[in-house]
Amino acid sequence: MAFKTDIQIAREAAKRPIQEIGAKLGISSDDLLPYGHDKAKVSQSFIDSVQDRANGKLILVTAINPTPAGEGKTTTTVGLGDGLNRIGKKAAVCIREASLGPNFGMKGGAAGGGYAQVVPMEEMNLHFTGDFHAITSAHNLLAAMIDNHIYWGNELEIDTRRVTWRRVVDMNDRALRQITASLGGVPNGFPRETGFDITVASEVMAILCLAKNLTDLQERLGAMIVAYRRDRSPVYARDIKADGAMTVLLKDAMQPNLVQTLENNPAFVHGGPFANIAHGCNSVIATTTALKLADYVVTEAGFGADLGAEKFMNIKCRKAGLAPSVVVVVATVRAMKMNGGVAKADLGTENVEAVQQGCANLGRHIENVKSFGVPVVVAINHFVTDTDAEVAAVKEYVAAQGAEAILSRHWELGSEGSADLATRVAEIADGDHANFAPLYADEMPLFEKIETIAKRVYRADEVLADQKVRNQLKDWEAQGYGDLPVCMAKTQYSFSTDPDLRGAPTGFSVPIREVRLSAGAGFVVVICGEIMTMPGLPRVPSAEAIKLNADGDVEGLF
Amino acid sequence: MAFKTDIQIAREAAKRPIQEIGAKLGISSDDLLPYGHDKAKVSQSFIDSVQDRANGKLILVTAINPTPAGEGKTTTTVGLGDGLNRIGKKAAVCIREASLGPNFGMKGGAAGGGYAQVVPMEEMNLHFTGDFHAITSAHNLLAAMIDNHIYWGNELEIDTRRVTWRRVVDMNDRALRQITASLGGVPNGFPRETGFDITVASEVMAILCLAKNLTDLQERLGAMIVAYRRDRSPVYARDIKADGAMTVLLKDAMQPNLVQTLENNPAFVHGGPFANIAHGCNSVIATTTALKLADYVVTEAGFGADLGAEKFMNIKCRKAGLAPSVVVVVATVRAMKMNGGVAKADLGTENVEAVQQGCANLGRHIENVKSFGVPVVVAINHFVTDTDAEVAAVKEYVAAQGAEAILSRHWELGSEGSADLATRVAEIADGDHANFAPLYADEMPLFEKIETIAKRVYRADEVLADQKVRNQLKDWEAQGYGDLPVCMAKTQYSFSTDPDLRGAPTGFSVPIREVRLSAGAGFVVVICGEIMTMPGLPRVPSAEAIKLNADGDVEGLF
Repeated sequence: MAFKTDIQIAREAAKRPIQEIGAKLGISSDDLLPYGHDKAKVSQSFIDSVQDRANGKLILVTAINPTPAGEGKTTTTVGLGDGLNRIGKKAAVCIREASLGPNFGMKGGAAGGGYAQVVPMEEMNLHFTGDFHAITSAHNLLAAMIDNHIYWGNELEIDTRRVTWRRVVDMNDRALRQITASLGGVPNGFPRETGFDITVASEVMAILCLAKNLTDLQERLGAMIVAYRRDRSPVYARDIKADGAMTVLLKDAMQPNLVQTLENNPAFVHGGPFANIAHGCNSVIATTTALKLADYVVTEAGFGADLGAEKFMNIKCRKAGLAPSVVVVVATVRAMKMNGGVAKADLGTENVEAVQQGCANLGRHIENVKSFGVPVVVAINHFVTDTDAEVAAVKEYVAAQGAEAILSRHWELGSEGSADLATRVAEIADGDHANFAPLYADEMPLFEKIETIAKRVYRADEVLADQKVRNQLKDWEAQGYGDLPVCMAKTQYSFSTDPDLRGAPTGFSVPIREVRLSAGAGFVVVICGEIMTMPGLPRVPSAEAIKLNADGDVEGLF
Repeated sequence: MAFKTDIQIAREAAKRPIQEIGAKLGISSDDLLPYGHDKAKVSQSFIDSVQDRANGKLILVTAINPTPAGEGKTTTTVGLGDGLNRIGKKAAVCIREASLGPNFGMKGGAAGGGYAQVVPMEEMNLHFTGDFHAITSAHNLLAAMIDNHIYWGNELEIDTRRVTWRRVVDMNDRALRQITASLGGVPNGFPRETGFDITVASEVMAILCLAKNLTDLQERLGAMIVAYRRDRSPVYARDIKADGAMTVLLKDAMQPNLVQTLENNPAFVHGGPFANIAHGCNSVIATTTALKLADYVVTEAGFGADLGAEKFMNIKCRKAGLAPSVVVVVATVRAMKMNGGVAKADLGTENVEAVQQGCANLGRHIENVKSFGVPVVVAINHFVTDTDAEVAAVKEYVAAQGAEAILSRHWELGSEGSADLATRVAEIADGDHANFAPLYADEMPLFEKIETIAKRVYRADEVLADQKVRNQLKDWEAQGYGDLPVCMAKTQYSFSTDPDLRGAPTGFSVPIREVRLSAGAGFVVVICGEIMTMPGLPRVPSAEAIKLNADGDVEGLF
């Protein structure tokens, strides 16, 4: 049986003008700022005008720990959104924007897959509406103003060895990871070491995704720490007087982007912070706006539930006052098998026992999500090689955990394949069974917050941290940052910090290498292991094959 | 008498939906890709569909050598366009896009001024439709691919000391002028010296503005020289296999942007190459498209006529097969006075004698433009302090040169003030008096081309160049680049290379410091004096005062 590729399906989509999609949510043409005929930003004035409305139900899609087999989280998010619309509900999906740079390394990521996709796929993988470019500009304006301040006399007494604000570019460019800048003599400033990260790693990205409105955005931008003095006192972006101009550069980017699914249902695609050094969710403003306009909003969080759902709950929901009504944990039979020890090459062979063994990973995620007081549904994202016995094994296991697993065939059939899942999810959401609370209180000391996540979510025995890290956390508490949530940066492949430890490991420690304060975003980043903030290109980058074909279509990007 | 500021006037503009503006040129809504309600790109498919139509008349607006008094070239371009529409002609203007970075240094440049402006002014000074971001991305993708090629084994045998391709950012950031990259050990590559230019200095910008279509764009991108081997043989962008992906990144940016004047007439705003190391004109594709849609197209070129008009004729028109019907040289009484030796502080006092002396600068420009076989009209851009006697002095002088000077009051009155100018310009254009030819033939040796411009346009006695420069030019001729035009990079303030030598100097030499080959753009850059390709920010950058006010309007940018 020959399947069409994602891009073939996307190009055959019968897209409707974006004004028609907006109308489904009650957004008039005047309140949509179009970008071409199939993308639009929702105007800030319209967003302001709907703030008094009641919220719809918030549905989070998360997943087991990712494996090379793929779990299809975005695909399920889109499929569930279409399924809800199919059964007569007014639903919208909220997902993240794609970063430009990585698409030129490996083939670009689609927004969903099969018959559960968001379009226009090409533009979403290229410049889209320019949000990331605006973030790059705002970030680099601040960087230029810092060096300019030093150049003209350094009134703030910045220690040039302690400038923490780097520059960003939305490109995989390892040559820029570490540089010496301001070379060339007096007219170019004071030489110092610095470097570039990829744009999605910018604290500006995290802030754009957490800010409630433009006023909040500017305050958070001003609160970012950009450098320290010799006496270790921090220098803030507002000291550099960059916060106003950065806000101006970001004012359009703050408006959420509206596009459509293959089935012409509304999809907000906005923001894309890293899921390790940041919180990995689409923007608060997109989610809160969607909740004012739709009865059901389906959104997702990065990586597996141990990182993604945890941060969604403890950072995004806490900060934005959101509460999910139900959480969907996506699992695939293939990923269960890999968690059960099967190699990727053998995934096509039925292996019920491996499925059963791999289910332990799923089981722990179910238990974790429940601990936030939110009901759980498991979506088995169907793959053609799945056998009935394997699917039955997952269902049985999940039932034994006191939850329900539903087979969903949105990839193959669109909303026809996800109607069952949608029906059940809507029932649970309508039942108002959730009693959401974050896992820890704001007042808990920072180190205890880390321990809480490590022990209750990851099931580690202990957290290892040297005195320097512990003292740093205490210093921040003394400076008034103790009420911030923590943002864990660890491997997404395991509950532990060892990517090869699949399933549901126990008896391990979580070593903390470093802690960083994102004072503007409002969290303390806890780094456990290597975190790469500037990727490189592979030996043969996909860029070499990307081109326009004779029809003017993009080739090689997907 | 209190005048409104440009931004006050721009904010009071009664803008029409961009679809209405497009309709004036016969562009349907389907063929316009809107960016918000007041900006749009004209689709490539529409552009393809009008190629068989006859061309309208092309009118170039150029100016005397700029002085701190200001000459109002863009204002006159816009005012003349509105004037032509007022007298019943179907006219469009074509101007350049603004660079983002410099707006955060000094207050941003409006697109025109007074009642002769293009709107939306704010967005044109911020991200606009993202063209410059696309150029930045394409440029930096190539840079990343070059270092990536070296990292993975350097099959092309690039001499890492001779990588000529730098990186770009649309920001005034002197700290990036000269850097050492790829520091940090094995995973980050081979350390080497490099740096950043501002985006408008990118050869990609020049190419975007000279390419006829996407095929031509990709060919030119591939032809760019990015590095040399130890044997001095060039490595091209196509050797790096970056040309296809760069074209994909630029495919939207290649489509011209349509906006409107304050009087709701169509304006194309597209491209913005440097006027020193590049040719300083808006894009060929915008100009050629406008010529298919309007009966009169008013466009401008950077700096004074010695640089701007010369390059417009010898580079843009030569390469694009364009021929102007009439050239408007903008002069102001104030600028004439400064050319006549008056200090800026004394410009408010009547001084007919200084005006007469300063007219020598204008006279030489008139003569130069005529030497291209194109009729000349002088537009005296009226300023409130001008006296009747001063204006009369300019008119008399110009009449004595066998041309005509017309007072135009578009800044104060809009098209009502420029109707006389428009009437005369249209008459001359309709008379088909032009017999355009570039100043030199393709076959002329490169050094002779430089001499031709220096002697016939600048009126220098001689061109000074050491043997190294002369040999370099001969080498390029041997390599097949001898038929390229030359692109002069010298001060815009004087016919000579000394910015303080105003008026119509004689008895000077033009020393050549360096020559560079822009093999993709298709010209040889001839550098006479210091050329800054990465500006810095001033002690108090305007960014410090830029912010959103309580109404959500941008403050401090203008």
